Amino acid sequence: MISKIEAYINDNKDRFVGLMQDFLRIPSISTDPSKVQAMGDAAEWVRQRLADCGIEAEVVETAGHPAVLADTGPVNEGGPTVLVYGHYDVQPTGDESLWHSRPFEPSIRNDVVYARGAADDKGQLLTHILSAEAWLKTADKLPVHLKFLIEGEEEIGSPSLGALIESHRDRLACDYVAISDTAKFSADTPAITYGTKGMVYKEIIVTGPRQDTHSGSFGGTIRNPGNVLAQIIAGLKDNDGRITIPGFYDDVLPLTPEEREPIAVLPFDEQGYLESLGSPALHGEVGYSTLERRWVRPTLDVNGLFGGFMGQGASTIIPARMGAKVSMRIVPDQDPEKVSEAFDQAVHALAPDGVRVEIKDHARAAPYVCPLDCPGLQAGMAAVEAGFGRKPALIREGGTLPILPLFRQVLGAESIMMGFCDPNCNAHGPNEFLAVEDFICGIRTSAHFFNAAAPAR
Amino acid sequence: MISKIEAYINDNKDRFVGLMQDFLRIPSISTDPSKVQAMGDAAEWVRQRLADCGIEAEVVETAGHPAVLADTGPVNEGGPTVLVYGHYDVQPTGDESLWHSRPFEPSIRNDVVYARGAADDKGQLLTHILSAEAWLKTADKLPVHLKFLIEGEEEIGSPSLGALIESHRDRLACDYVAISDTAKFSADTPAITYGTKGMVYKEIIVTGPRQDTHSGSFGGTIRNPGNVLAQIIAGLKDNDGRITIPGFYDDVLPLTPEEREPIAVLPFDEQGYLESLGSPALHGEVGYSTLERRWVRPTLDVNGLFGGFMGQGASTIIPARMGAKVSMRIVPDQDPEKVSEAFDQAVHALAPDGVRVEIKDHARAAPYVCPLDCPGLQAGMAAVEAGFGRKPALIREGGTLPILPLFRQVLGAESIMMGFCDPNCNAHGPNEFLAVEDFICGIRTSAHFFNAAAPAR
Repeated sequence: MISKIEAYINDNKDRFVGLMQDFLRIPSISTDPSKVQAMGDAAEWVRQRLADCGIEAEVVETAGHPAVLADTGPVNEGGPTVLVYGHYDVQPTGDESLWHSRPFEPSIRNDVVYARGAADDKGQLLTHILSAEAWLKTADKLPVHLKFLIEGEEEIGSPSLGALIESHRDRLACDYVAISDTAKFSADTPAITYGTKGMVYKEIIVTGPRQDTHSGSFGGTIRNPGNVLAQIIAGLKDNDGRITIPGFYDDVLPLTPEEREPIAVLPFDEQGYLESLGSPALHGEVGYSTLERRWVRPTLDVNGLFGGFMGQGASTIIPARMGAKVSMRIVPDQDPEKVSEAFDQAVHALAPDGVRVEIKDHARAAPYVCPLDCPGLQAGMAAVEAGFGRKPALIREGGTLPILPLFRQVLGAESIMMGFCDPNCNAHGPNEFLAVEDFICGIRTSAHFFNAAAPAR
Repeated sequence: MISKIEAYINDNKDRFVGLMQDFLRIPSISTDPSKVQAMGDAAEWVRQRLADCGIEAEVVETAGHPAVLADTGPVNEGGPTVLVYGHYDVQPTGDESLWHSRPFEPSIRNDVVYARGAADDKGQLLTHILSAEAWLKTADKLPVHLKFLIEGEEEIGSPSLGALIESHRDRLACDYVAISDTAKFSADTPAITYGTKGMVYKEIIVTGPRQDTHSGSFGGTIRNPGNVLAQIIAGLKDNDGRITIPGFYDDVLPLTPEEREPIAVLPFDEQGYLESLGSPALHGEVGYSTLERRWVRPTLDVNGLFGGFMGQGASTIIPARMGAKVSMRIVPDQDPEKVSEAFDQAVHALAPDGVRVEIKDHARAAPYVCPLDCPGLQAGMAAVEAGFGRKPALIREGGTLPILPLFRQVLGAESIMMGFCDPNCNAHGPNEFLAVEDFICGIRTSAHFFNAAAPAR
């Protein structure tokens, strides 16, 4: 049967690419208030596409942008249920003059589709709808009970998703969540991403004198909030790249040889990586490789500093108020609440008398790692190998997907992240792209995954 | 005669305050490129005011903002010559929402004039022009050969003043320079300031990745310019308030008991000082009193920090470029060039691999101390006592007047600093002010000083 499915996919290649282009023409920028109509259009496009395949689908309103829910119904007693998650919203285009073709006029050059959303996530999510079509048109029925949850707020932090999942908990019940919103390991090597980091994002505000005051007349007699802020930040990390917040590493799971070995053998071009970033040298936590630092070790980064005189030239003040945005990426089994508290305590302990220190909380999210022995992960590996004709790398990701711990917590389901796009696909930047070949391999992978997925319990 | 002068000053009080307000309305911010027109307007306003008093005055172009030169001509063979120095440029306004009235719309509340430049230095420099008017309108002639040098670049470090003085060396020749750009010791006690600190002002720029980059995908593998900047700044000072730049204190003259004793007996209200600043506690170099820290010990202060994500909320980036404005106040016999070099070396030594560090030079100026036995200083003391009806304190100042060593070097003249404004006048901050009473006492003091000044040689 699967060879017939593959033949259908090959026969419909051009039509599938055309459908992707139609989807990409809708400027569904979730953060842009002027695009509300486009958001509704994109949700409706997804619903209609699912309906055209014969899958019952519904646009569901939320407090923000609508989501699309769909369900093919059970296949057989005790058979597996797969929930496909994706998002139809996209990032803003940024400076359009940097694009070689218009962001919402998909352009195919050298068999690569360029458009905003090609990789993140319209092109990738579409693979699962089209593989479902291939199954339904060829075999009349799906090998799994298939559900879809396609939201429109991923690029703005999924504010409505938690409530949506809670209130549709039964309707979304599944064995696995299938997500294609990550990338391949390299242009040559497809990948399954089995873990993401969590995040704790803070803002430190240090205040001293009531207002900006003369650094000559008063300098040397009171604490300078700028010097103190620097002292606090410098006290959070040592020169070996270790975070010095007491207790920070307590719950970090040590890396086992079983985890390190597969990372060590990956064909990682460290020099190319450094060149693409443009820093003069790599640096990170002593004792770990660059890929381990990216994927499995927690980090602490200043995202911004501000306060005092920030203009051209010179102004001689002791600033009244200085601030820093500081974020941490955390890994299993670190708990965002515990890390948040440890951070606050460390900052207050580092702050000397003579200033006031306030800490604001921004985002907070748990890390996620899918157990390596999860049957769905094995099915995913087999499916990617079948779809791409190449063994996938099993990788992790430094970024944060707050939805993954949510799916585990509310639905009890692990997420299988099959990424089809290039790691340099310019998601969030100009000239975002998805290669036609990767798109088709993605559809094939999805078709194999539906076939291979076994019930989790 | 002097009593007639005083009567004239009293009779013209309201008009004088009105003139000050006219002057303060001109937004002559020297560091702001959009204020070039206002700079020219302010220079012309000074020239016109001098001309209105019957003093020949000229706007002189420089490489930067223009200066105003004026000369009343010699009075008698061998009589003293006094050069009044002041500056018509002002600091930026900072956050205007913190002002209770608009910075360039002078507002009088409870007999206090609030506006940018009221104290620093428009209001104070005007006292000398108005006392000259009082002499000329009352006595027909001045008791001294009076000259004026009013520049427009003091707040940006007087970059053109050196060349201007050099090229007008003969025209500016004088026995003393009279300057009112300092403050009283306290609200109750007028003061003569006989020493100022020098300054070395730097900007540190740390760059890492080519552009702001994703803190999740790349965090932990390259140096974060924000963390590095904090580390560098924290490494410049220890928790005892000592600057840790190697060699920094080498040329600092130790404080003698003869210098410490007069400072120790001044009626300094430390609690009131702290309350006026609004910091939770005082802090400074261990082993020195607050006044010693202010006046005779070198300092290092962050004036501003900037870079990365500085907006509302959270953005998760490793910033490409972070900057800090850092200034040092230096004391006799520290050399600005030597301190500048020591700073640069220390910063580069503190900077780790993996980032690029660039240091920009802003202002640089030597410290200054007037010999206590200078006859002009004695004349100044007597004039302040006559003008304010109270004995002045003889004090030093943490601020910097780069012109003082310049006047000594090029003109061979010591500077007599008679300060009329409140020490908490908010110079450089919001709600800068000058009390009308202090303004009038200042005009009286100036009139007495012209009368009392004897030739230096």
